[in-house]
Amino acid sequence: MTDKTARVVFLPSGRRGEFALGTRLLDAARSIGVDVDSVCGGRGLCGRCRIICTVGDFAKHAIQSKAENLSPLCEVEARYGERRQPLQKNHRLSCQALIRGDLVVDVPPESQMHRQVVRKQAEYRDITLDTSVHLHFVEVQEAEMREASGDLRRLCEALEREWQLADLACDPVVLAMLQAALREGEWRVTVAVHNQSRIMAIWPGLKRFAYGLAIDIGSTTIAAHLCDLATGEIRHTGGIMNPQIRYGEDLMSRVSYVQMHPEAATELTEVVRDGINELIADVAREAGVDTDDILDITVAGNPIMHHLFLGISPVELGGAPFALAVDGALDLRARDLGLHVNAGASVYVLPCIAGHVGADAAAMVLAEEPHLLEETSLVVDVGTNAEIVLGNRDHLLACSSPTGPAFEGAQISCGQRAAAGAIERVRIDRESLEVRFSVIGSELWSDEPGFEDSVQAFGVTGICGSGIIEAVAGMYLSGIVSADGVIDGSLARRSGRVIPDGRTWSFVIHEGKQTIKVTQNDVRQIQLAKAALYAGTKLLLDRAGVEQIDRIRLAGAFGSHIDTKYAMVLGLIPDCDLDAVESAGNAAGMGAVIALLNKATRKEIEDTVRSIEKIETAIDPNFQTYFVDAMAIPNKSDAFPKLFTAITPPAHALEAEGGGNRRRRQRRRAEPR
Amino acid sequence: MTDKTARVVFLPSGRRGEFALGTRLLDAARSIGVDVDSVCGGRGLCGRCRIICTVGDFAKHAIQSKAENLSPLCEVEARYGERRQPLQKNHRLSCQALIRGDLVVDVPPESQMHRQVVRKQAEYRDITLDTSVHLHFVEVQEAEMREASGDLRRLCEALEREWQLADLACDPVVLAMLQAALREGEWRVTVAVHNQSRIMAIWPGLKRFAYGLAIDIGSTTIAAHLCDLATGEIRHTGGIMNPQIRYGEDLMSRVSYVQMHPEAATELTEVVRDGINELIADVAREAGVDTDDILDITVAGNPIMHHLFLGISPVELGGAPFALAVDGALDLRARDLGLHVNAGASVYVLPCIAGHVGADAAAMVLAEEPHLLEETSLVVDVGTNAEIVLGNRDHLLACSSPTGPAFEGAQISCGQRAAAGAIERVRIDRESLEVRFSVIGSELWSDEPGFEDSVQAFGVTGICGSGIIEAVAGMYLSGIVSADGVIDGSLARRSGRVIPDGRTWSFVIHEGKQTIKVTQNDVRQIQLAKAALYAGTKLLLDRAGVEQIDRIRLAGAFGSHIDTKYAMVLGLIPDCDLDAVESAGNAAGMGAVIALLNKATRKEIEDTVRSIEKIETAIDPNFQTYFVDAMAIPNKSDAFPKLFTAITPPAHALEAEGGGNRRRRQRRRAEPR
Repeated sequence: MTDKTARVVFLPSGRRGEFALGTRLLDAARSIGVDVDSVCGGRGLCGRCRIICTVGDFAKHAIQSKAENLSPLCEVEARYGERRQPLQKNHRLSCQALIRGDLVVDVPPESQMHRQVVRKQAEYRDITLDTSVHLHFVEVQEAEMREASGDLRRLCEALEREWQLADLACDPVVLAMLQAALREGEWRVTVAVHNQSRIMAIWPGLKRFAYGLAIDIGSTTIAAHLCDLATGEIRHTGGIMNPQIRYGEDLMSRVSYVQMHPEAATELTEVVRDGINELIADVAREAGVDTDDILDITVAGNPIMHHLFLGISPVELGGAPFALAVDGALDLRARDLGLHVNAGASVYVLPCIAGHVGADAAAMVLAEEPHLLEETSLVVDVGTNAEIVLGNRDHLLACSSPTGPAFEGAQISCGQRAAAGAIERVRIDRESLEVRFSVIGSELWSDEPGFEDSVQAFGVTGICGSGIIEAVAGMYLSGIVSADGVIDGSLARRSGRVIPDGRTWSFVIHEGKQTIKVTQNDVRQIQLAKAALYAGTKLLLDRAGVEQIDRIRLAGAFGSHIDTKYAMVLGLIPDCDLDAVESAGNAAGMGAVIALLNKATRKEIEDTVRSIEKIETAIDPNFQTYFVDAMAIPNKSDAFPKLFTAITPPAHALEAEGGGNRRRRQRRRAEPR
Repeated sequence: MTDKTARVVFLPSGRRGEFALGTRLLDAARSIGVDVDSVCGGRGLCGRCRIICTVGDFAKHAIQSKAENLSPLCEVEARYGERRQPLQKNHRLSCQALIRGDLVVDVPPESQMHRQVVRKQAEYRDITLDTSVHLHFVEVQEAEMREASGDLRRLCEALEREWQLADLACDPVVLAMLQAALREGEWRVTVAVHNQSRIMAIWPGLKRFAYGLAIDIGSTTIAAHLCDLATGEIRHTGGIMNPQIRYGEDLMSRVSYVQMHPEAATELTEVVRDGINELIADVAREAGVDTDDILDITVAGNPIMHHLFLGISPVELGGAPFALAVDGALDLRARDLGLHVNAGASVYVLPCIAGHVGADAAAMVLAEEPHLLEETSLVVDVGTNAEIVLGNRDHLLACSSPTGPAFEGAQISCGQRAAAGAIERVRIDRESLEVRFSVIGSELWSDEPGFEDSVQAFGVTGICGSGIIEAVAGMYLSGIVSADGVIDGSLARRSGRVIPDGRTWSFVIHEGKQTIKVTQNDVRQIQLAKAALYAGTKLLLDRAGVEQIDRIRLAGAFGSHIDTKYAMVLGLIPDCDLDAVESAGNAAGMGAVIALLNKATRKEIEDTVRSIEKIETAIDPNFQTYFVDAMAIPNKSDAFPKLFTAITPPAHALEAEGGGNRRRRQRRRAEPR
């Protein structure tokens, strides 16, 4: 060592310091709080601490950075280059390079420990990578006769010496692998440590990657995002149908099934866990990842799926007072839940907000962050119940409202789940009352040439949630349905599509192998559902004393696929600038990803959930009044929205406008220009 | 309330205080630190807080105690009497009785929370009952619409309010039972809490009893003590053969088996766990206890059994440097070990001391408490290896010594395990060289009338560990074997029992269907074993600088069954007053019981084990010297023990003396008067 010093500036943070010549760049960086990653603990093995020596005369930094101001490429770096990939010009391993003079050093994003996760889509908040699980490479003192301590004790001593991890517990599953790993790795092993407190896995030698899964258990589909815990990258996203569907399409029928067959709760739990295991295997295979390398899982889901996944009977959620068994977040072991990932893996289950406002709503809040914004948000996820969250960083309120399954196409005469053959877009000409529509699985509108061929494989089989909303909204805009929701039978004179149907009238959307029509009862079902949704929102607005909503987010499958314009025409959501209404896509899944990649957000959502004011719509005397008022289309109690003025031109013109939702939602198929 | 006060003295503690009239006796007791038990939290349900109002004029206490100085028997106490058993005269529930005047109150042992456990045998230390698991009865706030919190949160609030238990975690297995228990118990439940931190089980209504198991996994047998955690009483003790025996009688052959078939480690683990489950079911059935009510388990075992039980391959323990995977104590879940008890039950595995000094030795220390005594103890457990602990409260040392399995009857020409038909006692007449013996399974000596009939069912099949020791010692005392261990062939002229056997001589113990004899090689095996044991002890004495041993404890099956006199004749143990040598019985099992009933002893043994000085005999240069020196009978390096003088009279006389061991050891059968 010399007593001479040199100045080093680290980019992009701009932190600078003066260091003795001969100091390792990694030590220099860490001493002034520049967080450079490392798995191997500075042995030149993992390459995670790679930096770029930025050569040149940096007037801004008053520093002359020259390549020779770093020690020359050493043997360890050469070996690293041979084993992995040669280091590019000016790229160095900061654990090997020594300071020889003034330097400007760039720490690239992939070498930053708490880097921003760069995502392809811009809908959600930025995530700073800070996972619960970390990999640590250590060299353990060999076993020898003179030393009676067990291998685990010497492993823990090494982890404390090299990584300052004290008082670690060891998962029992690691005990069985410990000795073989140490000997196979010649006393060099990588361990995964959970929350700086539990050794959860061990591998011989250097292990550079570990993975996590964010799972959203929906009533209809289960989705999983497989993330690289080292980079935060979503490596693969997959989904399967919830195999519980054979016990009932909607949640309440599954609960009824358990009410009638109490022993079936276990069966439903097994079925959903089997489904998740199948999904895990699929997603891992697609990403080329070994399921044994999956160490952390976050789970969101509505209260009933949450309970069934945890092995809790959902019967209490099927009747008043709708008591959750557990509302708080849970830290569990994957093996206790029968999940086929690493035997030491952790599972974090997000908290539920209330009996009908589940961990999916909590995850949705985490993704849409109404609790962090000054502006007032309304975040809605529509399923069998609508979960509604309103508020801003000062105060949040939540409730659920019994919309029933009409928005999902159930209890609609020609309704069906969103699947190939389902009508999902409907346009009605206000003059001729003629109809054009599109179906899932075809790129064409029904009046375009080749449409018949394009749907031949599956046919036109029914109408899904977004289709029925557009149909009823279109019927209203073209005068087929009155503000009271009555189909005007007198129009039968003008159009053959208006037909008598028992003592009421129906409107035919499509005449083919099957006749797809909207009945008077269908209109009533949609009115009931939308009135429930609107009344729930109104109740929250009332309680919060809020008059102006700044942004509306529609989450979940429903929110992703409905056209927000039609939702407003029907009065599903309160008056708001159309541009401020957006689809939140799979916000619950994204919330689970956030909780997976940044452990601080777990505490954040737990605190937020506890502070949310929970409103029980079923016992609020105003709810019925709001509900009845909201039966009208759009809503009797609202000033007719300015939107309506905007869409008085014939429905065809609507398409050209480009509703707010259009920009962002994940499209199942492109609309024609 | 009145502002008048009364004086109350609590017996047996003698604590006294002055209390406002109208104070509940239970509150009064607790306010001055008199610990009165309660499961129901003062509701008059459990009867655990029952006290006796001692009526009379107590000059000693300056108090006039009268029955009317307590409030009259109330309705709750009457109901308790109807439901359980009527309260005797002057017996009251202290949670119901109010102070009306001066009182002398006796808290009977069964109402003391930290009572002394009364045991039938007096060999071991006293145990103050203070278990890891406690039962708590609580009334939980009912679920209601206005309150969104889950049942678990309200349960935790009740536990904090009524029992001051804060921040409890809940085992995931409890989640599944929670709602049904609360509703079945009409919001009154009993929960079991582990270490004041984890809810491990739940039952509707009042649950008064929970059980624990202390298990000692030996190479040959597995023993279990089922204890009532409320009283500390051992309800039943049971044992089974270790089913691993089919993989090898002694431990090293099982390790060799795994070395040759590495995948068999899992198989051996399954086999021992299956055996333990069978034992648990047996013991519970015998005691009339539901296995689901077993909530806590402590486990001791030698290092190889310890590892196999935990699912760790024992191959590293089969060769230098004999590294343990884990030496520290472990807190685990029974379900992670596949044990069929309550799904939330805990398992505490005692620490190992060193590679060949296992958790059984640690448990033996806990039971024999050398670490607490001023006098210097030598505690020895002989198996395939001898585990030796020496020292006192200032310093303990431990080592293992490779005695081999000769003391267990293995590698002896006619040797066998201690089972029906095995010769266990041998007396040789010094004049005639005639032999009398007894066998396991018969009450008679071989020269008594009816002996032949008494052994007919199994025959005389071999000689077990204690038998071979008495035989060789007797041969030495009668001059058949020299101090160098050579059988004197010239005696063939005097006795037909001395017979030529290849190039050496043998001594016939029994001539029947099978000839049971002691060969020259058998004497050598015993010499090697006893030399190893003695050399290990000598090494510890040397290191400790100890010359005088105050007490010797021989633990385990071997220690229980050998006659200490003969052990000293052979020089197995160093010179010591014969009265100071005792069998420690199943000290490992008793240590596990102690750790089960008093949680503070867990920390105590962990600290003790860490502070023990571990001596590795295999690398100590003096060990070989001591070993060679100790080959002689008794031992070349010792002054001939004064014992020898004591037993120069003919061997017959020995029996009348009553060796130190005789008083205390568990006898397999009575010796004749």
